[in-house]
Amino acid sequence: MSWKGRDVINILDFSREDLDLLFQLANRYADEDYRGNDLENRMAALLFLEPSTRTMYSFMSAVYRLGGKPITLSKTEASSIAKGETFGDTIRMFDSYSDVIIVRDRREGAAKYAADIAESPVINGGDGAHNHPTQAMIDLFTITRYRGSVDGLKVGVLGDLKYGRAAASFILGLTIYDPDTIYLISPESLRLKKEVRDYLDRVGVKYFETEDLTDILPELDVLYVTRIQKERFPDPLEYERVRGSYKIDLSILSNAKDDLMVMHPLPRVDEISTDVDNSKYQYYFKQAHNGVYLRMALLKLIMGD
Amino acid sequence: MSWKGRDVINILDFSREDLDLLFQLANRYADEDYRGNDLENRMAALLFLEPSTRTMYSFMSAVYRLGGKPITLSKTEASSIAKGETFGDTIRMFDSYSDVIIVRDRREGAAKYAADIAESPVINGGDGAHNHPTQAMIDLFTITRYRGSVDGLKVGVLGDLKYGRAAASFILGLTIYDPDTIYLISPESLRLKKEVRDYLDRVGVKYFETEDLTDILPELDVLYVTRIQKERFPDPLEYERVRGSYKIDLSILSNAKDDLMVMHPLPRVDEISTDVDNSKYQYYFKQAHNGVYLRMALLKLIMGD
Amino acid sequence: MSWKGRDVINILDFSREDLDLLFQLANRYADEDYRGNDLENRMAALLFLEPSTRTMYSFMSAVYRLGGKPITLSKTEASSIAKGETFGDTIRMFDSYSDVIIVRDRREGAAKYAADIAESPVINGGDGAHNHPTQAMIDLFTITRYRGSVDGLKVGVLGDLKYGRAAASFILGLTIYDPDTIYLISPESLRLKKEVRDYLDRVGVKYFETEDLTDILPELDVLYVTRIQKERFPDPLEYERVRGSYKIDLSILSNAKDDLMVMHPLPRVDEISTDVDNSKYQYYFKQAHNGVYLRMALLKLIMGD
Repeated sequence: MSWKGRDVINILDFSREDLDLLFQLANRYADEDYRGNDLENRMAALLFLEPSTRTMYSFMSAVYRLGGKPITLSKTEASSIAKGETFGDTIRMFDSYSDVIIVRDRREGAAKYAADIAESPVINGGDGAHNHPTQAMIDLFTITRYRGSVDGLKVGVLGDLKYGRAAASFILGLTIYDPDTIYLISPESLRLKKEVRDYLDRVGVKYFETEDLTDILPELDVLYVTRIQKERFPDPLEYERVRGSYKIDLSILSNAKDDLMVMHPLPRVDEISTDVDNSKYQYYFKQAHNGVYLRMALLKLIMGD
Repeated sequence: MSWKGRDVINILDFSREDLDLLFQLANRYADEDYRGNDLENRMAALLFLEPSTRTMYSFMSAVYRLGGKPITLSKTEASSIAKGETFGDTIRMFDSYSDVIIVRDRREGAAKYAADIAESPVINGGDGAHNHPTQAMIDLFTITRYRGSVDGLKVGVLGDLKYGRAAASFILGLTIYDPDTIYLISPESLRLKKEVRDYLDRVGVKYFETEDLTDILPELDVLYVTRIQKERFPDPLEYERVRGSYKIDLSILSNAKDDLMVMHPLPRVDEISTDVDNSKYQYYFKQAHNGVYLRMALLKLIMGD
Repeated sequence: MSWKGRDVINILDFSREDLDLLFQLANRYADEDYRGNDLENRMAALLFLEPSTRTMYSFMSAVYRLGGKPITLSKTEASSIAKGETFGDTIRMFDSYSDVIIVRDRREGAAKYAADIAESPVINGGDGAHNHPTQAMIDLFTITRYRGSVDGLKVGVLGDLKYGRAAASFILGLTIYDPDTIYLISPESLRLKKEVRDYLDRVGVKYFETEDLTDILPELDVLYVTRIQKERFPDPLEYERVRGSYKIDLSILSNAKDDLMVMHPLPRVDEISTDVDNSKYQYYFKQAHNGVYLRMALLKLIMGD
């Protein structure tokens, strides 16, 4: 299936071949720190109806680097759009103004709905609980860029696996490849949702659930850390206990493999100590930086000639 | 009178010849879905001191499509500008930063005042009760594009004719041409202001006022629908009654001419049912889309070489 | 020291030779009202964590005029960034997105801290009480442009010298040159801070403190007016008295030299009467306008090839 004009709604809509092509171009952009006029006089609408500054600015930078023009509607402006207008009419309006629509919305299915209405391709910048396909692409690209492939790796995912959109999307994305094992490390109350576990079972990806990081850490090739939000816990004491045990610092990492990649979709609060920032384990800033190149490649494949 | 460097304050400042030239260029842009570098390295200030997302984003898209750069000040930012600074000083500041100033302000006469201060041309993006000249140009262009001319047409304008800026501007714009009749359809309490009616009398344009759409609908070539805002009504029951009777759907339109154009300056709330969206009567999305081409043509004539 | 890749944190980091080079380029840009593609496909992050619309839009215009792309984070957006993320992580993020970072922050030392973290050059858009180096450059450039040099001039600085960031930065900037005398005109309670006066003593620049403008006005070549904010005064009556005596109008200026330059960093409220706007004394709008050319020159020297 060709990338040209394609909507990007769910990471599972893409095959390994699709991603190979995407990552190949992203690698080239990253190697060259590429800038060009590929999207000259093309507009990209960035509809961020839920705030997500990192995703928004990363896309904005990607659009600019290819010579395109961002038309940005942030949450703040969006509130003044309403006046009772439907989401569909808003999408139609921005469809008139731009050549691609990147949409972030709290409601599950919003991006799909927009794609059904718009003539321009629609990219899901995050909707509902599962889908944040471009973040998953960035995560998979980062592993591929530094390890050659996701195949055969032992990948730990740590933190809030129940509500964390990035984590769920990443885990689903892993199933497009053949990782050795996925380790799901979370407190019982923030376990990965049953529907995602069922999917892992169905496609036959090996996974292992645990509350404890210590035992499995030495096995891991990748440790994907996510934020645990206080408001998810009915009991503040429980939160303090969990948060402490999932905080990654150099002392904990002394048991890790030499080439462990510590990743994080950012922003972090304190789940990764700053003493990791200048260590060999740090891949989270690289991951954010790679995000720009990945999104450039995505825009180029979808919109380019 | 030449378009070059001209201020755009009031639709009545423009002759039929001015508009012919403008619409000819806008037609070309629309036919070609034109993009170019006509305004390369030229800046357009978009001062939206009152929120109006559609007008703002439509202008932004127009600026971008011609290779220009938008410098956008929205209401949200504007509030932090104040610090007691006068409107005049704000205009002088943006005059330094840009090559054209598009200004939206609640106060009647704000655009004229800005034009008197600024060296750059000023475009009125809507001020006070009457003037929204670029919306009127879009409306007249849309009719011209699909019907060849406004001359000889029977045009109905429906809704809040008293406070609706777009409606008043459109009605004044119609007088530049020779429509057969203008039908002013509104509840008594939202009748077109006396000063506008007086103007229609003075220039000898035939118009007809009525509260009831039903009888005249079969006559109409164009039905221009506008929003009725609840807060205009002292009595909520009166609002409910009026609103219901002015809601356009396919069942009501069964009495209309086959080639009736249903227009709306948008956003709509529920005054046009979504069942009209995919019908032959729908011209309101086309109208919004044409808005980008019309504004491109306007910028090109005013700022181009 | 070369300009290429240099951070701009404090006006005192720059030598007279540095500024000569900068002003020479800024003069050329001003003479030609220059536009170009010098920064094509280069991004400039504008992080305005404290609102400062003039500085922000002036930089935005400068970036655009050189063909660059602004990535703007205003206070409004910034509030949604937080989620507990550190300032350092925010800087790292924007370092990934852009080629230069312009940062405005209330906290003293914020720009220096950002410069230590970022790989890209950082420009201080104002931090804490003293430093607003690009404003000082604009002020010095404006004097140089119209008087040839700052050397030998009698320069009055009027208003809130204690809290006024622009005033303090300007006064420090003057010490890079050899002005005849600096007249510090302020109420006792808003006197220039001791540390700045100590600096003037140390570098041997002659200055004279007074509460009264009248006597010294006829001596001045430049009068730099700043705003006095009501909230600085414990006693409202004291504020009214001071404010009145420091209000500049044509009648007061009748005692001034014919070629006195009246300057102001803007925004003004009423400390300069509008009757001065069209007089020969008015240099404050020119100063704002020059700001765009100065900032273009700065970006070109730091980022250009």
